[in-house]
Amino acid sequence: MKWEENVRRVTPYTPGEQPDKAGVIKLNTNENPYPPAPGVSEAAAAFQAGQLRLYPAFPEKTLLAKELAAHHRIGTDQIFIGVGSDDVLSMAFMTFFQSDRPVFFPDITYSFYDVWADVYRIPYSRKPLNEDFNISVKDYCQPNGGVVFPNPNAPTGILMSLDAVEEIVAANRDVVVIVDEAYIDFGGTSALPLIEKYDNLLVVQTFSKSRSMAGMRIGYAMGQPALIRYLNDVKYSVNSYTMNTAAYAFGVEAVRDQAYFEACCQKIIKTRERAESELLKRGFVFPKSFANFIFAAHKTIPAREIFERLKENDIYVRWWDKDRIGNYLRITIGTDEQMEALYRALDKICRVYSDKKNSIIT
Amino acid sequence: MKWEENVRRVTPYTPGEQPDKAGVIKLNTNENPYPPAPGVSEAAAAFQAGQLRLYPAFPEKTLLAKELAAHHRIGTDQIFIGVGSDDVLSMAFMTFFQSDRPVFFPDITYSFYDVWADVYRIPYSRKPLNEDFNISVKDYCQPNGGVVFPNPNAPTGILMSLDAVEEIVAANRDVVVIVDEAYIDFGGTSALPLIEKYDNLLVVQTFSKSRSMAGMRIGYAMGQPALIRYLNDVKYSVNSYTMNTAAYAFGVEAVRDQAYFEACCQKIIKTRERAESELLKRGFVFPKSFANFIFAAHKTIPAREIFERLKENDIYVRWWDKDRIGNYLRITIGTDEQMEALYRALDKICRVYSDKKNSIIT
Repeated sequence: MKWEENVRRVTPYTPGEQPDKAGVIKLNTNENPYPPAPGVSEAAAAFQAGQLRLYPAFPEKTLLAKELAAHHRIGTDQIFIGVGSDDVLSMAFMTFFQSDRPVFFPDITYSFYDVWADVYRIPYSRKPLNEDFNISVKDYCQPNGGVVFPNPNAPTGILMSLDAVEEIVAANRDVVVIVDEAYIDFGGTSALPLIEKYDNLLVVQTFSKSRSMAGMRIGYAMGQPALIRYLNDVKYSVNSYTMNTAAYAFGVEAVRDQAYFEACCQKIIKTRERAESELLKRGFVFPKSFANFIFAAHKTIPAREIFERLKENDIYVRWWDKDRIGNYLRITIGTDEQMEALYRALDKICRVYSDKKNSIIT
Repeated sequence: MKWEENVRRVTPYTPGEQPDKAGVIKLNTNENPYPPAPGVSEAAAAFQAGQLRLYPAFPEKTLLAKELAAHHRIGTDQIFIGVGSDDVLSMAFMTFFQSDRPVFFPDITYSFYDVWADVYRIPYSRKPLNEDFNISVKDYCQPNGGVVFPNPNAPTGILMSLDAVEEIVAANRDVVVIVDEAYIDFGGTSALPLIEKYDNLLVVQTFSKSRSMAGMRIGYAMGQPALIRYLNDVKYSVNSYTMNTAAYAFGVEAVRDQAYFEACCQKIIKTRERAESELLKRGFVFPKSFANFIFAAHKTIPAREIFERLKENDIYVRWWDKDRIGNYLRITIGTDEQMEALYRALDKICRVYSDKKNSIIT
């Protein structure tokens, strides 16, 4: 068809599989294994559907903005709320990366950065992580059109020190630096206090991981009011109403229940620590993780092999057929029970693999 | 600040005022005065917050897609669901309007079209409505990069005949034609049946008006599977998960209750017909409306004057300080009670205005 000549062709992002099958153990999309705070259920039960006839409030005027501001001890004019951190990051790319110089981000990182850059025609340069998958600060201290990186990085789970983050922000006062803290609540230290000192720093967080609300699509950015204003201007020019009324109502409760939030994060950290020793025992190597997943390679069995065998056992983890990381699996931290099932399946896979190898040798 | 040089500068869209004040009569944003179908309340009450820990399903796999497909008698592969029709339209602009030729739309129309075109750097040409605010079909039968128009048009409320719509679609087989049917359920005839015949036609509808769910942000596009696939490819490359789990659950019920939906639309049509005679009596002129609003000018009192005076009476209508339409008010059809309050306020305004004029003459 002739109209197809005017169609934008993209290489679509492939999200982690969402198997329809019941009973599978999903350790492939970094979802939280625990439900949201009990207050979220109460908010759902109390929700007045009649109000839906009206357009939603503007994010900055909501109770959600007030609760987030109180929680982080900043002003409501320092928060931009969007439909998951993907929406927030995508808007931030569109708003702040309008330079002819390339935007810098790691070669191994969240797979959406280059996709957004392509969509918005933003030039970019991927800076290779070093051999240990660490970010080299000096790579980000050259002229550029902006900087973005997750901390902890994904899918490695490696945390950069706050000093290193500050070094990058300080070296780039002429551009906006975005620190994507989707996984910060699992043991990291947020760069948020630096926003007072640096007007070029935008810190992005999400309700999808530590607040168990991936299904509600809530993310937010924090920075000085000028940054937030620019973001809002672009956002309102694309879609005045993105957040729905239910997201505001449910989200508030997830912020309010600080005790539940902390207990939930602690449980996941504890299970992760246990997972580290269990995976080590079974011949895996991995960088120390500060996220709700472990990025692990097996010393002898190829990642693809383990990935496929686990799937046969109804356990889904994430594997990318990509340079440098093709022998790694990203394993989300589930409940203790789910992790036990994973260890048992790994034992079986290791056994079968070593039998197969021996039989080949014989 | 130097980083501000790389910031995208936009003229932000100004949505209708959302007054915080209680007790105001909001006839300014084309919201439905009636609540959503009773099933939506039941869906909210029954909503299981625990599922929110998981990412939402992909739109095409949801019950919402199945219900919409059944309702419109098309396949689920012919429906694209987004965060309100704004999200759907914005994605469609991004996906289908990649030509060097200008996209055509009316000079007086939904104010987001030129905003999206600017954001995505799409060339465009505004085709003036004729003196009676009608679209001239022949204007759209010249080489272009795509066509988009609302039917009924906004803010005029004027309906184009299905024959005229087909003429435009048929004359533009080499580009995508988007018919934005946000207001079609208030007396218009949808172009939907034409998608079987024309693979270049995309029909967009929304839950925000006739289904009383502006607060839930649900819109959708319908077309042949190839069009929908292209839309999905671009959408997934920008944000994998835009719709939240609650929107799917609540939305289903708004589609299922056909009787409530029809009764609601009929009530609004009846109130609109009454409003036409009441406004005529009070010296207004307006084109025949097929939407949930009337676009009216007063024979003697300037629109701005009426707009400001109504606001003093806590009645909000919409007015734009723009060429050609600066003397018109867009008045959303509310409940009968709200409209009675409007008529009373208009009587007062007319009286005061004529007293003032007389006193100036004297």
